[in-house]
Amino acid sequence: MNTTAAYYTGSKEIVVKDYVPDEPEPLQVQVQPAYSGICGTDLHIFNGAMDQRVDLPHIMGHETAGVISALGTKVNGFEIGQPVTIMPLNACGKCAACNRGLSHICYHLEFLGIDTPGSFQSFWNVPVHTVHALPNTASLSHAALIEPIAVACHDVRLGKVKKGDHVVVLGCGPIGMLVALVARSVGAEVTISEINKYRLDLASSLGFSVVNPNDEDLIEHVNNWTDDAGADVVFEVTGSASGTKTMTELVCARGTIVIVAIFGAPPPVDLFRLFWREIHIVGVRVYETQDFSQAIDLVNKTILPLDALISDIRPLDEVSKSFADLTQGADIMKILVEA
Amino acid sequence: MNTTAAYYTGSKEIVVKDYVPDEPEPLQVQVQPAYSGICGTDLHIFNGAMDQRVDLPHIMGHETAGVISALGTKVNGFEIGQPVTIMPLNACGKCAACNRGLSHICYHLEFLGIDTPGSFQSFWNVPVHTVHALPNTASLSHAALIEPIAVACHDVRLGKVKKGDHVVVLGCGPIGMLVALVARSVGAEVTISEINKYRLDLASSLGFSVVNPNDEDLIEHVNNWTDDAGADVVFEVTGSASGTKTMTELVCARGTIVIVAIFGAPPPVDLFRLFWREIHIVGVRVYETQDFSQAIDLVNKTILPLDALISDIRPLDEVSKSFADLTQGADIMKILVEA
Repeated sequence: MNTTAAYYTGSKEIVVKDYVPDEPEPLQVQVQPAYSGICGTDLHIFNGAMDQRVDLPHIMGHETAGVISALGTKVNGFEIGQPVTIMPLNACGKCAACNRGLSHICYHLEFLGIDTPGSFQSFWNVPVHTVHALPNTASLSHAALIEPIAVACHDVRLGKVKKGDHVVVLGCGPIGMLVALVARSVGAEVTISEINKYRLDLASSLGFSVVNPNDEDLIEHVNNWTDDAGADVVFEVTGSASGTKTMTELVCARGTIVIVAIFGAPPPVDLFRLFWREIHIVGVRVYETQDFSQAIDLVNKTILPLDALISDIRPLDEVSKSFADLTQGADIMKILVEA
Repeated sequence: MNTTAAYYTGSKEIVVKDYVPDEPEPLQVQVQPAYSGICGTDLHIFNGAMDQRVDLPHIMGHETAGVISALGTKVNGFEIGQPVTIMPLNACGKCAACNRGLSHICYHLEFLGIDTPGSFQSFWNVPVHTVHALPNTASLSHAALIEPIAVACHDVRLGKVKKGDHVVVLGCGPIGMLVALVARSVGAEVTISEINKYRLDLASSLGFSVVNPNDEDLIEHVNNWTDDAGADVVFEVTGSASGTKTMTELVCARGTIVIVAIFGAPPPVDLFRLFWREIHIVGVRVYETQDFSQAIDLVNKTILPLDALISDIRPLDEVSKSFADLTQGADIMKILVEA
C-alpha cells in the first residue's frame, strides 16, 4: 500500500509524496483517513495567511472520518478496523478557560491539523481522547462532515435559536449552509443572504428562502418578513464589512448576532444600534463535546441533505488543484479528499 | 410662588423665564420637582447634537425627585404632597419590543424630558404610570439620582455580574461610577479605568482600585489582577476608540462586555478576539421596572455613598452656567438643579 502525505511547503505550494508514518504513541490512536474535507482555515493556510502559526512543511486536514489502523499501547475501548471521526482539539487542562469548563477555547489550545500534523496523509496519529466512534454502517463521506456540522451545532446552540425563530444567515459557504440547516432542524425559519449565484441556487434547491443583497434590499426584506420586528438571530458568516454593517440593522429588540466568520482587521460595528435595541453579539469558536455528539447524531440519523453539499471527492494527489479551485471561488461547496 | 421653566432654544442657549404651567390631564400627575440631575444626554441636547429629535423650545430634565402638586381627574392611589420620583419612559404598548415584554426599548418610545417636556420647570405633568412613590422620610436630593442608579442596576443585571467577579469599568463619569458602585454592591471586585484626575481621586476615595491607562498598561494590570484569566465583565462607558480597542483585550473566556456608552460613528471592534475567546457583547439601554425598584431600594436603604457624587446643588436660573461648566469638563461629578 502507498503511504503518502500532502505537505504544505509555503505560499500556495503543496507537495504530495511518499513518507514513512510514525507508530502511534501509547495514548494515541492511528487512523487511516477515508475522507477529509478542505476547510476555510486550510485555505487560509494554503494562501500563506497563517505562516506565523504553522510549522513548515505542514500536513493540513482536520475534517476526517476513517478507520482505526493501529492502537497505542495504553489505549483501551477501541479496536482496529473500527470507523471513527476525530474532534481535533487538544487542551492544556490548566488555564483559566479549562478551569471554567471551556477547554474548547483553552488559552493554549492545540488544534490538530493546524498546530500539529493533520489528516491529509495515509495514517494519522491522534490523541485517544479526540477519537469518536461511529456505527459500522456509517457513511464515511458523510461522517467527514461531522466536524463542520459540529461548528454549526455550536453556533446555533450559543445563538439560542428556538423553534419558530426568524433567523438570517449572512453568507452561505459550507459553514453558513450548515448553520442554516442546523437552525432549520431545530425549527427556525431561515433566510439566507448570499451574492454567489451557485450558492444561492443550491440554498434555494434545499428549500431556503434566499436573498441576493446586491439585487434586493435585505433590511427591507427582513422587516417585511418579520412584521417590522427584525430577526431573532443573525449569523455573520461573510467576514465582510458589508456583513457587519448590515447585521445590526437586521436584529429585533434584544436579538442576537452570532459572529461565525473569522475576521482580520477589526471592522466598524454600530454600537449605537447595539445600545438602541439591546442587541447581543456572541463570539463562537469550534465546538464542545455536546455539539460534536449532536453532529454525529445528525449524520447517523441522515437528517441533513449532505450529498448536496459534497461537490466532489478527489484523490489526495490532486489536493493542490482542489485548493487552487477553492481559492478561485469555483462553483464548489465542499471538496472531500480521498486518502 | 414663582413659576419658571428653562427653555433650550438652540445650540448652547437656555432661557429661564416665567411661564404658566398646564393643569394635569386626566391620567397625569403634576409633580413639583425638588431636584433634577443634569444628564449626559441633556448635555448632548445642549450642545445641539440632538436638534433633529427635540422640539424647540425644549424643557430638559428627567432625573427628578419631588412632591405631587396636583392629580389628574382619573388618577387613583397617589395624594398631593407625596414624595415621588419618575421613571421617564412612555411606551406604545403595541410594537414588537412591547409585545416581547421589552417596553423600555419600545420601537416608538417617548422619553420624558427628551421627546416631551422635562423637569427643569416648577411643575411637571407626567403620565401616572411613570410615578414611583417614595417614603415620607426620603432624601429628595438622593432620590434625584434614582434614575441614573436604575441605569446602573440595569447594566449590572444584564452584564450578569456575580459575587466575586472581576469587573472593569472603563470611564468614570456619573454612570460609570454608579455602575462600579452597583457592581460592588452585588459582591464584585471592581477596577476603574479613567484618565481624569478628579474622577480618579474620587473613585479612589470611595475605595475602588483605579488605573490611569495613560500612565499604566491597563491590559497588563488586569492580567496580573486576574492571574491571566481576564476580567469577567467589562463595562465600556467611555464611548471612545481607545475604550473599544481595549475592551476586547480585557475579557476572559466567554466573558461579557457591556456597552453602556452612547456611540456616534461605529468604532472598529476586534471581532477576531470576540471569536477567539467567545466573548459576549451586550447592548443595554435605560432600565426596566425591576431596575427602577432596585434603585429606589438602594437609595432608601442608603447603601450607596451618594453625597460624594453630588458635586453641587444650584438654582434653576443658573442652569446655563451648569451646562457650560459640565461641557468644559470642570471637576464635577453630578450637578443637581433645584427648582
